[in-house]
Amino acid sequence: MLRRVTVLAGGVGAARFLDGLTQVVPPENITVIGNTGDDVELHGLTICPDLDTVIYMLAGLGDQERGWGLANETFHALESLKRFTNETWFQLGDRDLATHIFRSSLLRCGFPLSEVTARIVRSLDVRSTILPMSDNPVRTWLGTDAGRLDFQTYFVKHHAEPEVRTVDFIGADEAAPGPAVLQAIAEADAVILAPSNPVISIGPILAVPGIRETLRETSAPVLAISPIIGGKAIKGPAAAMLESLGHGASALAVAKLYSDFVDVFILDETDRDLRPEVEQLEMRTVVCPTIMKGLPEKSALARAVLGAANS
Amino acid sequence: MLRRVTVLAGGVGAARFLDGLTQVVPPENITVIGNTGDDVELHGLTICPDLDTVIYMLAGLGDQERGWGLANETFHALESLKRFTNETWFQLGDRDLATHIFRSSLLRCGFPLSEVTARIVRSLDVRSTILPMSDNPVRTWLGTDAGRLDFQTYFVKHHAEPEVRTVDFIGADEAAPGPAVLQAIAEADAVILAPSNPVISIGPILAVPGIRETLRETSAPVLAISPIIGGKAIKGPAAAMLESLGHGASALAVAKLYSDFVDVFILDETDRDLRPEVEQLEMRTVVCPTIMKGLPEKSALARAVLGAANS
Repeated sequence: MLRRVTVLAGGVGAARFLDGLTQVVPPENITVIGNTGDDVELHGLTICPDLDTVIYMLAGLGDQERGWGLANETFHALESLKRFTNETWFQLGDRDLATHIFRSSLLRCGFPLSEVTARIVRSLDVRSTILPMSDNPVRTWLGTDAGRLDFQTYFVKHHAEPEVRTVDFIGADEAAPGPAVLQAIAEADAVILAPSNPVISIGPILAVPGIRETLRETSAPVLAISPIIGGKAIKGPAAAMLESLGHGASALAVAKLYSDFVDVFILDETDRDLRPEVEQLEMRTVVCPTIMKGLPEKSALARAVLGAANS
Repeated sequence: MLRRVTVLAGGVGAARFLDGLTQVVPPENITVIGNTGDDVELHGLTICPDLDTVIYMLAGLGDQERGWGLANETFHALESLKRFTNETWFQLGDRDLATHIFRSSLLRCGFPLSEVTARIVRSLDVRSTILPMSDNPVRTWLGTDAGRLDFQTYFVKHHAEPEVRTVDFIGADEAAPGPAVLQAIAEADAVILAPSNPVISIGPILAVPGIRETLRETSAPVLAISPIIGGKAIKGPAAAMLESLGHGASALAVAKLYSDFVDVFILDETDRDLRPEVEQLEMRTVVCPTIMKGLPEKSALARAVLGAANS
């Protein structure tokens, strides 16, 4: 039994994986290091979409169908906001707004994001530990054929349609890992990279100085689940982005991005044939079903990953 | 026909009066000078309850029964906020939140409250002009038998139950009248003090340097409607407050507070007997029904007040 499991997480894919992981590992044994590169300031509120997606799911409050946001959500405030401004492309639910209002209010008082996140997590009775990758602001900006866009403008306002040519994590060079982040990697019994976009979900985490180095040096096995299956992403722009950035849209391309620190790479059965090439990167491979339709599939994937970590 | 009517306004009582006034005077001829002493910062949002009550009513969006807030309102964000903090005694509706979020965001960018208010007013298709009494923060603090309380803590959290012994308008001495406020008084064809609490709704407006002086000097007739009828307030703590502050709970006490600048004092029929005493303050009196049950009573009161202004 693994006592301490640390998960590097983006948004929707990570939340689904964590939903399964908590069926297999006691939630209090799980530490999540969350991406904050997607965070955005809108209407004077600081919104952390990836952290919230993970927290809501672990709290049992997440909307299972959409994969993000809260269940039974209403959008009355947003509807009213449309009378005041045209910049209402970001979906802000009424219940979700409470999180943003509370967080923004504490941040403005000077509390670091890690402390604010811990308070939100406690308030929602989440038993896992959720660590923002950094207390310093890091923001993902994309050079696209529609101009230079911050991540949410690209992703939500432009529906991830523009072709991504460059990716920058502004602020990453000067950012420090959040409190306990390096420790969570160094002292874990297993470190898992969730099936999140390697470029813009896991990428910003790896860009925070010290995190990638600690992943290389930890004595824990580091496992990654490919978010690309048969050359396609289950959801989101990962495949198109890997392609347009010149990596190629394949699980192998993801493995290459992680080759300096990942020990075990989990491939979907569809990608069984990629085993030899991935193993040439000096990784062990595990092949199993990675599409998480419902809780049984989620739990099975978590069990397979933990099994690989144990062996 | 009076071309320019300026109304000094608190919250609920003023909104009801204005609802009638707009039946009798074209809305675009009406300028409201609104109390901001009740404004409050909660959860990092700047809330202007009196301005909003007036704006929502003039926009036709106000909840007629409650007298404040928006019709068809939900409170999902507030419900969720209760998981994060115990300081949720102030009723923030979901649709109402949009106003506070928009306003707070612009204020934080450096826009003055007058400009932000004008944008809200335009966005909600209100045709009257709404002027905050000042762009500088003024806050009403009350010395009570439950300690020193800001207005909303006294009024909402403590249900206006503590006995009020002192009243301070913090910031008033250093505040300047908002743009166009003095002009709206000096150049009006009639100035009306709505039936609002004279101490904590009209009081803060009068405390902004220059406003009381301009009321004394304007060539327009200045008319005040007593919010006290038969020694009682229709709504709110006005009577108890006048009593505990030593003014006495009567329409006469209200007239005395305004005696240096009001020309015409409107008494309810119930208070007919107070005429001689009020007239000794060198005011003309008008006696008419002032209880505004529905739109007919509201319009009749507006007509009576305007009739007195014309004569």
